[in-house]
Amino acid sequence: MRYVVIMAGGSGTRLWPLSRQGRPKQLLGLFEGKSLLRLAFERLDGLVPPDRILVCTGRAYADDVADQLPELSPVNILGEPEGRDSLNAVAWSAAVVADRDPDAVVAMVTADQVISPVDEFQRSLTLAFEVAEQRPSALVTLGVVPTSAHTGYGYLHRAELLTGFDGVYHVAEFKEKPERDVAQRYLDSGEYWWNAGMFVWRAATLLGQLDQLLPATAQTVREIVARPDRLDELFPTLQKISVDYAVMEPVSQGRTDAEVVSVGLAIDWRDVGGFVSLAELLSRDAGGNAVDGRTVSLDSRGCVVVNAVGPDHVVATLGLTDCLVVATPHATMVANLDDAERVRQLVDLVRTEAGPEFA
Amino acid sequence: MRYVVIMAGGSGTRLWPLSRQGRPKQLLGLFEGKSLLRLAFERLDGLVPPDRILVCTGRAYADDVADQLPELSPVNILGEPEGRDSLNAVAWSAAVVADRDPDAVVAMVTADQVISPVDEFQRSLTLAFEVAEQRPSALVTLGVVPTSAHTGYGYLHRAELLTGFDGVYHVAEFKEKPERDVAQRYLDSGEYWWNAGMFVWRAATLLGQLDQLLPATAQTVREIVARPDRLDELFPTLQKISVDYAVMEPVSQGRTDAEVVSVGLAIDWRDVGGFVSLAELLSRDAGGNAVDGRTVSLDSRGCVVVNAVGPDHVVATLGLTDCLVVATPHATMVANLDDAERVRQLVDLVRTEAGPEFA
Repeated sequence: MRYVVIMAGGSGTRLWPLSRQGRPKQLLGLFEGKSLLRLAFERLDGLVPPDRILVCTGRAYADDVADQLPELSPVNILGEPEGRDSLNAVAWSAAVVADRDPDAVVAMVTADQVISPVDEFQRSLTLAFEVAEQRPSALVTLGVVPTSAHTGYGYLHRAELLTGFDGVYHVAEFKEKPERDVAQRYLDSGEYWWNAGMFVWRAATLLGQLDQLLPATAQTVREIVARPDRLDELFPTLQKISVDYAVMEPVSQGRTDAEVVSVGLAIDWRDVGGFVSLAELLSRDAGGNAVDGRTVSLDSRGCVVVNAVGPDHVVATLGLTDCLVVATPHATMVANLDDAERVRQLVDLVRTEAGPEFA
Repeated sequence: MRYVVIMAGGSGTRLWPLSRQGRPKQLLGLFEGKSLLRLAFERLDGLVPPDRILVCTGRAYADDVADQLPELSPVNILGEPEGRDSLNAVAWSAAVVADRDPDAVVAMVTADQVISPVDEFQRSLTLAFEVAEQRPSALVTLGVVPTSAHTGYGYLHRAELLTGFDGVYHVAEFKEKPERDVAQRYLDSGEYWWNAGMFVWRAATLLGQLDQLLPATAQTVREIVARPDRLDELFPTLQKISVDYAVMEPVSQGRTDAEVVSVGLAIDWRDVGGFVSLAELLSRDAGGNAVDGRTVSLDSRGCVVVNAVGPDHVVATLGLTDCLVVATPHATMVANLDDAERVRQLVDLVRTEAGPEFA
């Protein structure tokens, strides 16, 4: 049977003060009241039923996840006691699903993006499921057909076509976030896709790869499933490592008996990592400012203005150029847009100077 | 007997969103929780007792005035049904006080400034009372000894010394807000004082001048005192005019039987008209930003940051230069500091686009 695990971890300090320690970006109702998590869930509509959709998130967010996804049974919400990087979300999820259904095929999907069209996403995910079902040794990674020489994503270098499938490729190599000129070469060559960080595999296959590559992790996640009461004790002992480093790269290098293949996503892929990317999704006012919520602007240009306080509050700008203004009930941030990617530094300072309750 | 009337009208849109329609700047707790009104009241401590201090304000603010000045009897708060410029506040106050005490000498003082030292202010006000008591025909105006060629104040041109008093002058002429070069000439000459907009006179003398200059006004304010139930009907019929135009200028030109004399105030006089002048009264953070309330700044310079939301809110700035940030529960304003004097325009737009409840 097909399962989907939505990975919704992460603290999202880059969107502070919208996001904060108790409220990561995936849970923010940024899109006509819907969160990225909700959008990720609704993208699966008709593909797999809710009883086979799981969410892996921080335990602190489990209640909010349940509120936003009332269709889910509480047992389908996996709350990590602490963040231990992506491999352990993947490994624990695989062990949980394999325990329910030894033949399960699992799609690991992210909740960090706005994706369109959804039809195309579903078509690619279905193809990836078919590949994983028909080739038990395959770890299928989803690759986004790039539309720019983006330096904020990892890339994967496609090799030959996979026989018997249309548009599915072997993967020659994973590449980390490149410099601008390298990214341009990747784009021009037509041989590279953005690494979507989404995967499809048989749960048993993934666990078998872990047995070879990180046996301690494989053993621990199986133990957690057998003894849920030991979750708090065992989870923090898992080695902190990403799924790319731990599994995808070594397997793509032929170091195990499995293979990495990739299915392309020809979609509009908008990673909502920070305010600059969020701004691309907002509407524009008459002055060309990207705005959300109740805002008024006079002689202001090139600004991003987000009013998340509520309808009883107005955010007004006057003669402002290229600034980022974010107002929430607990904090207001005003930044030069050129510094928007330094928000984490500011959050650190806020934590120290104003107190952890504001960060 | 000596009386003081504190004039606390005005809507103060230049300090929006700190000030707003229901909350003018004189009532804002900007100075360690004290308002300009409270500071104006405390400046009178020891000079006249609270039962001879009156406040003339907009009726909408009367309750807030009573809250801030619990020492005052409610009958000492004169609530104007609508703003009719300074003459009518002055005329109505004079009629009220003359009705209580026909021999009353009244000081009309403003609540728009932070003044120091208070001793010097009291010394000058006492001298002005003495002049008015000893010269029944005198309208005494207070003049601030200028410390700069300020173009935001009116000036008064001193003439010869008044015989029998130390440092009291006849006034030759009132001058409107001058251009920069004219203001510099005024300053260099040593013959000009800033027009403080504060006056001391016998109530009967002021009313007598009005009988000559604006008999309708004189009659109407006497009628209001005789028939308080007709206040709402009569007050709006008063001619809208400033006390300078209506009385001080014509009297200084010799058009009546009275005389205008001036007592100097050698004080630090800070008019809190807008954010630029307010900023001079705020403390500085490590980056040299003028700040008030809970704020955090990273790589920000030359900004004015006011957090009036409260202690459960932080205002954080990042890479920001020469901006004005003001956060309140109902509105957040971010402006280029060069545009700070255009706040009224912004408020007009807010009223139209967001609604009058935000303005």
